[in-house]
Amino acid sequence: MSKSAIITIGDELISGYRLDTNSKWLSKNLSDVNIQNLSVVSVGDDPNAIIEAIANECDKSPIRYIFITGGIGPTDDDCTYAAIKSFLKSDEYLDKDYLNELSIRFKYGQKISKKLLIKQAMKLRDVEYLPNLNGSALPMFFVRDKITFFVLPGVPSEIKDIYKNSILAKINKSKLSRDELTLKFAGISETVLHEKLESVLKNYLKTVKVSFLPNFRIINLRLINTSEDKNILKEIKDNILANLGDYCIGEGDITLENAVLKILISKGLTLSLAESCTGGYISKLITDCAGSSMVFKGSIVAYSNEVKAKELSISDDFFKNYGAVSFEVAEEMSKSIARKLNTDIGMSVTGISGPDGGTEDKPVGLVYISITYLNKSFTKKFNFRVNRDGHRLITASTALNMLRLMLLNKIDFSDKKK
Amino acid sequence: MSKSAIITIGDELISGYRLDTNSKWLSKNLSDVNIQNLSVVSVGDDPNAIIEAIANECDKSPIRYIFITGGIGPTDDDCTYAAIKSFLKSDEYLDKDYLNELSIRFKYGQKISKKLLIKQAMKLRDVEYLPNLNGSALPMFFVRDKITFFVLPGVPSEIKDIYKNSILAKINKSKLSRDELTLKFAGISETVLHEKLESVLKNYLKTVKVSFLPNFRIINLRLINTSEDKNILKEIKDNILANLGDYCIGEGDITLENAVLKILISKGLTLSLAESCTGGYISKLITDCAGSSMVFKGSIVAYSNEVKAKELSISDDFFKNYGAVSFEVAEEMSKSIARKLNTDIGMSVTGISGPDGGTEDKPVGLVYISITYLNKSFTKKFNFRVNRDGHRLITASTALNMLRLMLLNKIDFSDKKK
Repeated sequence: MSKSAIITIGDELISGYRLDTNSKWLSKNLSDVNIQNLSVVSVGDDPNAIIEAIANECDKSPIRYIFITGGIGPTDDDCTYAAIKSFLKSDEYLDKDYLNELSIRFKYGQKISKKLLIKQAMKLRDVEYLPNLNGSALPMFFVRDKITFFVLPGVPSEIKDIYKNSILAKINKSKLSRDELTLKFAGISETVLHEKLESVLKNYLKTVKVSFLPNFRIINLRLINTSEDKNILKEIKDNILANLGDYCIGEGDITLENAVLKILISKGLTLSLAESCTGGYISKLITDCAGSSMVFKGSIVAYSNEVKAKELSISDDFFKNYGAVSFEVAEEMSKSIARKLNTDIGMSVTGISGPDGGTEDKPVGLVYISITYLNKSFTKKFNFRVNRDGHRLITASTALNMLRLMLLNKIDFSDKKK
Repeated sequence: MSKSAIITIGDELISGYRLDTNSKWLSKNLSDVNIQNLSVVSVGDDPNAIIEAIANECDKSPIRYIFITGGIGPTDDDCTYAAIKSFLKSDEYLDKDYLNELSIRFKYGQKISKKLLIKQAMKLRDVEYLPNLNGSALPMFFVRDKITFFVLPGVPSEIKDIYKNSILAKINKSKLSRDELTLKFAGISETVLHEKLESVLKNYLKTVKVSFLPNFRIINLRLINTSEDKNILKEIKDNILANLGDYCIGEGDITLENAVLKILISKGLTLSLAESCTGGYISKLITDCAGSSMVFKGSIVAYSNEVKAKELSISDDFFKNYGAVSFEVAEEMSKSIARKLNTDIGMSVTGISGPDGGTEDKPVGLVYISITYLNKSFTKKFNFRVNRDGHRLITASTALNMLRLMLLNKIDFSDKKK
């Protein structure tokens, strides 16, 4: 397996100003073509720091590819070009054809100065330039001391296209892809899952690399088979599904909302939502999925009590007797929305995400989730003591997982505990 | 200004499996206490790679702090403890009091094996341990060759609390914070903004470091004053606001939704939304902001035509004559929602985010955004030729910016161009 290193460039990346998503995307895609990334280094917009980082990675003996992202644009802070020029001790020249192309491209669009265009059209003689369909900064490709270099722009969408259109053809693709499997779990904590899996996994500790990656309410179990026996991962998977099937939402890149959508489509059931504290978040997650319009009809985001009363028929008595955040109001909301939008399933959420709005009886964090299906309702109380953003995220995930379990007939509708 | 380096540990970080958000958070917070982070290095769960990365950072002479995150938990893939033990050549011991505390803590919660607890209670003699209120892995603190080390868990929420409760007290806080300013712009492209600002910024190129950070529809202009003259940034800001005020949504951490919310609250105006292709995304963004309930009453997510007809009173004739994605339906939706939820402003969105659903007349990417305010409506057509996720994001940002401009009286309601 070939090894790679990634160097990401930009003051914004080392000062906490921007999240580096390129290295994650690149290393994931490299692993699909059997290139194992060994390190990610971020340095600022400083030619010396860039050259030092490159030299450092070159010294790590098995490295065969180095990917550099960012800092090849036309503005004054971009200095990766200067660093590569110095690293390669290369001459430069003005590519007049490219300058001409850029002038035409920008003539009809936004006005841009000649100075910037010229900076963008300067090229190094020792470098091959690759096309960039979505931007003006051209990626560089060169080989130095048996290491293949790609110098890319920093814009994620540009990198993705360049990777698919040019880089894949340049790197020596291995036919063998890595033998790995990721299973995703919901409704169980990392430690409990770890304990439950110990007896299954203990026989494979020498041959299979295991990691647990919790991400709010979802746990990713990643298994990498390092042996030659290609049946091992299937064996483990069957064993896990037999024991912990209810918790496993699927494998690979699947999300909770995609898992839910798949079951809804396969069963031909329609869904509507009534959201209070999540304010449209669950609807947003479901409609993130292409194809959601087949089963998802719509929602009412009832952020105010006025909208809850008028659009979801919550009576004054309910507000007075139970309050807007209550078992009773949640249940009434899920019934109303299913009836009103004429769907098989109605799901509702009402809670207090904070930071304000809590009382002694009903503290910040309290939330009720309710599902109505075939005239039966199931409603559950939760208390997530986290900040506002976390509360909304965990509430949305928990609701989606409740819906998934309901669709798999794992919910007992006769349970009326408040 | 002291310098730091961050080393993040985990196979998931270098193989593209998980995004590293800790280094961004840490370096941002360090800059607030006048520590400038110089690099971020990610390595896998491999003691030798960890030790090599530490040695490498130690060699960079001005480094005064090294922050290491991840790999100190109890599971088998965690090996940062072993790396630190080897780096420090330190003896270890079992902290029986801590083992006892962990046993009690886990007795009442989830079952966990003694073996894991013992791994978690092993300690190094040459290290000071800091408290961790949210997890079982204790952060380490030590000084070696004048460099101060903090070894932290990988869970973002734990790091944040440890930073606030322990690290801030340990590092030598400087009273001076960095003289910097970030201005945020919407409704203008990076190159056009760059051109327009050139005449303002050219006088400060030697004293002020400028970077442009575009993020979909928002551009962050970051200015760092490297001179002693503390009036410079204010001077630049005043100049920019005088020339480009309409495009500037604010400074610092402000988001577009927060900017909109601030104006709504200051003007005492209420808002409702009718969302089709964005499927609740705009409602989600607005309710991300604490305090949104003061002005935001709710939404109807009309993902199906049935819901558009029934809940937003779109007549059959409209669907037949114009189609669900049309100027006329968008305008009718914004009128209906304002009337129905009884708000000062109604905003609507209808479009085709793809990947399917486009026709020759109405291609994927087409979207109409409409605002109704005081019985007047303004509707605009857009075509964003990007993928589904990008389309939803850009549509949401564009709608929020249109609302912001409307609230600032920058929209001409008499413009009825279709």
